[in-house]
Amino acid sequence: MERLIFVLMRVVVTLKPGVQDPEGATITDSLQRIGFASVNRVTVGRHFDIEIPGRDEDRIRREVEKMCESLLVNPVLQDYHIERIQGPQPAG
Amino acid sequence: MERLIFVLMRVVVTLKPGVQDPEGATITDSLQRIGFASVNRVTVGRHFDIEIPGRDEDRIRREVEKMCESLLVNPVLQDYHIERIQGPQPAG
Repeated sequence: MERLIFVLMRVVVTLKPGVQDPEGATITDSLQRIGFASVNRVTVGRHFDIEIPGRDEDRIRREVEKMCESLLVNPVLQDYHIERIQGPQPAG
Repeated sequence: MERLIFVLMRVVVTLKPGVQDPEGATITDSLQRIGFASVNRVTVGRHFDIEIPGRDEDRIRREVEKMCESLLVNPVLQDYHIERIQGPQPAG
């Protein structure tokens, strides 16, 4: 019996330069108030780790780009890049 | 006049294995419904990009670890690691 092979890709999403980041501003302020006075700025981003079956990293990367354009990323406000985290390897 | 030198560190926060991730489950489901039927699983994480003045990366890394323990990370539910993104260099 053949085991399924998976690749784990990470989409890292950040706010475009100049977009307001109220959560980051709040965290900057909180860190300064609890003693980390030297912190200049904190910005917040998120990532999606996506497990997809297959061995062909180029094909999978193109599929993940389509997911970003369709659902995961707002291109007006956000930038993104894609990293390979694991695989191809059997599902964990 | 001396310009301030900064280091930009990224704290990448992920859920510990076994912790429920309802947002990731919703995104998995949404991707499958809009045509990405092969997606096996999506998990969601976040990151903090922290700009701190200084040149001594070891000292700055220890300070960022303290920020994680004090405010940024919930050690019951979350894992984290620290990456250097930029610097030391003059503030942008």
